[in-house]
Amino acid sequence: MIRFNCDYSEGAHEKVLEKLIASNREQTQGYGVDPYSMEAKKLIKQLCGKEDADVHFLVGGTQANLTVISAGLRPYQGVIAADTGHIHVHETGAIEACGHKILALSSEDGKITARQIEDCCRAHREDMDREHTVQPKMVYISQSTELGTVYSKEELSEISSVCRKNGLFLFMDGARLGYALAALDGTLTFQDLARLCDVFYIGGTKVGALFGEAVVIVHPSLKEDFRYLIKQKGGMLAKGRLLGLQFLALLEDGLYMEISRHADRLARQLREAFREVGVTFLVENTTNQLFPVLPDRVLEEWKEKYSFAYQKRIDEEHSAVRVCTSWATRQEDVDLLIEDMKKVWEEL
Amino acid sequence: MIRFNCDYSEGAHEKVLEKLIASNREQTQGYGVDPYSMEAKKLIKQLCGKEDADVHFLVGGTQANLTVISAGLRPYQGVIAADTGHIHVHETGAIEACGHKILALSSEDGKITARQIEDCCRAHREDMDREHTVQPKMVYISQSTELGTVYSKEELSEISSVCRKNGLFLFMDGARLGYALAALDGTLTFQDLARLCDVFYIGGTKVGALFGEAVVIVHPSLKEDFRYLIKQKGGMLAKGRLLGLQFLALLEDGLYMEISRHADRLARQLREAFREVGVTFLVENTTNQLFPVLPDRVLEEWKEKYSFAYQKRIDEEHSAVRVCTSWATRQEDVDLLIEDMKKVWEEL
Amino acid sequence: MIRFNCDYSEGAHEKVLEKLIASNREQTQGYGVDPYSMEAKKLIKQLCGKEDADVHFLVGGTQANLTVISAGLRPYQGVIAADTGHIHVHETGAIEACGHKILALSSEDGKITARQIEDCCRAHREDMDREHTVQPKMVYISQSTELGTVYSKEELSEISSVCRKNGLFLFMDGARLGYALAALDGTLTFQDLARLCDVFYIGGTKVGALFGEAVVIVHPSLKEDFRYLIKQKGGMLAKGRLLGLQFLALLEDGLYMEISRHADRLARQLREAFREVGVTFLVENTTNQLFPVLPDRVLEEWKEKYSFAYQKRIDEEHSAVRVCTSWATRQEDVDLLIEDMKKVWEEL
Amino acid sequence: MIRFNCDYSEGAHEKVLEKLIASNREQTQGYGVDPYSMEAKKLIKQLCGKEDADVHFLVGGTQANLTVISAGLRPYQGVIAADTGHIHVHETGAIEACGHKILALSSEDGKITARQIEDCCRAHREDMDREHTVQPKMVYISQSTELGTVYSKEELSEISSVCRKNGLFLFMDGARLGYALAALDGTLTFQDLARLCDVFYIGGTKVGALFGEAVVIVHPSLKEDFRYLIKQKGGMLAKGRLLGLQFLALLEDGLYMEISRHADRLARQLREAFREVGVTFLVENTTNQLFPVLPDRVLEEWKEKYSFAYQKRIDEEHSAVRVCTSWATRQEDVDLLIEDMKKVWEEL
Repeated sequence: MIRFNCDYSEGAHEKVLEKLIASNREQTQGYGVDPYSMEAKKLIKQLCGKEDADVHFLVGGTQANLTVISAGLRPYQGVIAADTGHIHVHETGAIEACGHKILALSSEDGKITARQIEDCCRAHREDMDREHTVQPKMVYISQSTELGTVYSKEELSEISSVCRKNGLFLFMDGARLGYALAALDGTLTFQDLARLCDVFYIGGTKVGALFGEAVVIVHPSLKEDFRYLIKQKGGMLAKGRLLGLQFLALLEDGLYMEISRHADRLARQLREAFREVGVTFLVENTTNQLFPVLPDRVLEEWKEKYSFAYQKRIDEEHSAVRVCTSWATRQEDVDLLIEDMKKVWEEL
Repeated sequence: MIRFNCDYSEGAHEKVLEKLIASNREQTQGYGVDPYSMEAKKLIKQLCGKEDADVHFLVGGTQANLTVISAGLRPYQGVIAADTGHIHVHETGAIEACGHKILALSSEDGKITARQIEDCCRAHREDMDREHTVQPKMVYISQSTELGTVYSKEELSEISSVCRKNGLFLFMDGARLGYALAALDGTLTFQDLARLCDVFYIGGTKVGALFGEAVVIVHPSLKEDFRYLIKQKGGMLAKGRLLGLQFLALLEDGLYMEISRHADRLARQLREAFREVGVTFLVENTTNQLFPVLPDRVLEEWKEKYSFAYQKRIDEEHSAVRVCTSWATRQEDVDLLIEDMKKVWEEL
Repeated sequence: MIRFNCDYSEGAHEKVLEKLIASNREQTQGYGVDPYSMEAKKLIKQLCGKEDADVHFLVGGTQANLTVISAGLRPYQGVIAADTGHIHVHETGAIEACGHKILALSSEDGKITARQIEDCCRAHREDMDREHTVQPKMVYISQSTELGTVYSKEELSEISSVCRKNGLFLFMDGARLGYALAALDGTLTFQDLARLCDVFYIGGTKVGALFGEAVVIVHPSLKEDFRYLIKQKGGMLAKGRLLGLQFLALLEDGLYMEISRHADRLARQLREAFREVGVTFLVENTTNQLFPVLPDRVLEEWKEKYSFAYQKRIDEEHSAVRVCTSWATRQEDVDLLIEDMKKVWEEL
Repeated sequence: MIRFNCDYSEGAHEKVLEKLIASNREQTQGYGVDPYSMEAKKLIKQLCGKEDADVHFLVGGTQANLTVISAGLRPYQGVIAADTGHIHVHETGAIEACGHKILALSSEDGKITARQIEDCCRAHREDMDREHTVQPKMVYISQSTELGTVYSKEELSEISSVCRKNGLFLFMDGARLGYALAALDGTLTFQDLARLCDVFYIGGTKVGALFGEAVVIVHPSLKEDFRYLIKQKGGMLAKGRLLGLQFLALLEDGLYMEISRHADRLARQLREAFREVGVTFLVENTTNQLFPVLPDRVLEEWKEKYSFAYQKRIDEEHSAVRVCTSWATRQEDVDLLIEDMKKVWEEL
């Protein structure tokens, strides 16, 4: 069985493991104030060109999302997100469990627009019983999105402007940030993110680490007492250096972007092969996730050999599935799938 | 200024006030276990034909909604509601503040259907990562709805069936229950509600009381320790008899339905008059709320004389407004508005 | 049965009722922005000598407590309170339900000291793993306390200083504020409170109103968006004028202090009578609540005639009970109890 | 610098690392349903003699505590704990952030008694305004406690009985379970725990793992939908096998108890050496944590060489510190400290 269903099927990149092994018996302080974590934080601030940013390492995405959102909102404030957003559909109500409403905006491709955000704020402002409605205070976007699409620098700049104008924090979920930046091919940088967002994270779990997300806080209001929130929400890792070490490995020699490009390249090969045999896609995108619409009989035929994530039924004979590549995907597995694809479509 | 903007502009029906005055210097126990509250609870159980129901009096609707929903859900469970539902759009995230997600279903007229509920449950059940999504456990409907429409007995029966089949509690917000039952003209009774819903409330605030909603709990799981929740959520009125006394006045001689019919009748007069001059409505309905689409210049002309609630812009020259009658609306005020209407439309 | 068990057995002072009756059929805006509420707010600001204070009316004490505390704390911050404090022992975890820990300080007489607060803050500051502990941010005190004691102006000044020094909000629960101020006989004024506290409330429920607490917010940080919180927590009364009208009646001609003095005077009569027959008290105090230690056989003998609140067992033959007077207590009932007291103790 | 300040200064036992390395490039399903996690769960059920228990792996202790407690309590219910309990003093209000009050019982040595629990339940039951107080529903104990003490089988049995009698869930925090069981030297077993507790966890973070706690749920009510809660609270590790693999390594050949005994043995050596030079202890215990009362001048002298955790000031010249051994502590480091100890005390 070859797994294309998600981008977290394997362990970690070997360079990550090496660092964990090499430091294993060293004694350090806990809770993320060890030398490795400090060094990794410094490195990330340099990458972002923001010496005064705060960096915190968290174990996973839901944890990062709920902690950041808790930091930014008072009880009656809400977070604007696409109705396809991870926090809205795939975190078991984690944000609501912290007391906050998600103000969901309609989205076809996983993205929301500056205009939609502006409209949402205006509607709130103009409501005569404003106090009876949730006050928008933060915008949550995913880069890349849950549908594999990306925000360009222009789009982000517009969103950033509208957020600043309306007093909203802009929060970018970067669980798949590497794959997005690789797809944008240098037109969007860590520095851009640090300039345009108030807080974002560099995802490790899906990009080469065993686990871990590096939260970069730029806005001063979000920095205050953030570690209290991490602890309270259950995200303070005792052996915090495990996170620092992994991000050191990923970021010190450009490994993060290198493996991200690898995944995007393999995804591109698959995308083109699918297109060649005439397959259409649920949504057009350029990162490590594809959403081809496949005949059910092909899915049936392949079900012991390849694992995909079922996305949704398209018609009586077709379904959209998610096909993921990752830092760990092997060229040979991609080749095999392409080969099988050609064979199957010849027979169709 | 004559207020048609809402149905809570005045104090209470005189019979309600009389009871408060008559008992004012009596000493009773607090917190809703006084003789008046006990008597009112008994009366409500009789009306509902449910001797084993539990009845609790709460001061207002948001309080009732958040307390009932807290009683029914574990932290990862959500409540299904129309996207026009009061809890979704007009309670400042009160439900989310208790930790629960609202699973909003699209609605044009304020109602949701059994089919929509079934689909929502099926989608959850069939999700391979079910545990990453909020589990539907309750359905919230308003009778009448925020758009003045009503559920017929047939519709309610279907919704009730689908709820029972899927293990969902059915909760009816009855802030305007009197106006709904009056409009349904005997085809839906308190007994029907007690049979079809797991919990519902008989609204007093908008139907003759100073304040107060009588929550009727039918499902045993929702009854347990409900008073703890009332207290915790800040809804335990020290002088609880104030609530019992008001519901006694409203319910003991049929006053509740009598004043509800009054409001619906006056609304019908307005509706017909509007229709006669060619006005259309945002939504068709039969209760005490109308949503006529009016020329902005008429609204401008009337703004010192009549108060309506602005609902939404329709086009560059027209807006939909909400016009409410209530138990307290005077025939002469309705006549005056109709007269003005005719005059204005002649001149248009 | 004559009730001395609490101070909320009756309805409202007649002047309060009169205002409700007189305005009953008037139409006003809802949610506390009607002319009566505005006037009452203005009056309260004048009483407090703080034109820039914000005043909000809430229905009850638990609601007021949870709303104010929610306004003042971020999720990881806690509120310091006496371990006898109402929020700690008698609100079913309402504060915790809003996500906040109560940092309970040991108290014998219901009061806490500036020194205890200072120590609590220092302990937090000096903790090496500070972020693993709840950060103190607010102090909650009751005036009068749950044990009927009062803070003098000197004590309050010390507490206020230590709060300001440590960046803590000082919040005074004034459910029985009238009885406290009356007992302090002019040595502490509303102006003093507005100067020393960041937020406090003037209790109506126990001092002549049907229900209602007037929250006075002095600190700017607590003012922001307070109405959103009121709505979210279920405390936004639709017919908000009911609250404004009551406080107008209570405060416009000095009625509030007049009826408070009445209650304290009757309590003093009872206290002296108990003392004369040799009864001791669980705690010494001067307001409308007494805590005499009585022989169980006397309690048994009186149980059909007088209602007291059981407080705690003292020894095998004695219990402490709470005896309350209020704005509504009749001199003749106090006389009767004193008479019975003398009779019983003669026979003992 | 030799660290004795805590038991999580190093990485993981080498056998744990080996398993992670060996499986690194394998593809498995995520979220804890991979073959390794399944095997580890099976092994734990066997150890506990409970085939029908549910086992879940969580990353850390605070996360485990808040998830389990959320699973067991309705909003108005609270958890009884020692006032020294980790959840009460060292988790930044994580439990309160989930909405629940901790009912803290006074404790000198970190333990609470069956009698204290019984009294707490009785007080609640007998309160006339029961609904105004938090309802006890769970008991939280730590084994070993935060002060290094342990509950014997007899004590646990008594606590278990009183819990069952009063309808309370018994929850044991086993962050240091290995050290407790080793100290009890076979008189308390995993099977005993599974019989006496409703839920407990086997701590990995402090006993040989990089991170991880294995939650064992015995009571059926706590099992239902537990994975939803894990996800919602941010504790669902994407690469869940990392947890399964570590517990496999720790438990399959008795490694867990072997390294626990090692830590306790070294602690015993230190304890005896301290005692020999005349040092007293804040509390008597037998596990891997010691709390010697040391002269400040000795602490000052050692501060560059040894790291201890400051516990509390005893008098003007003495402080209690925490000295920890762990699975990773080296005999040579213990020997060095003992040697230094002797030298220093000779000179005193």
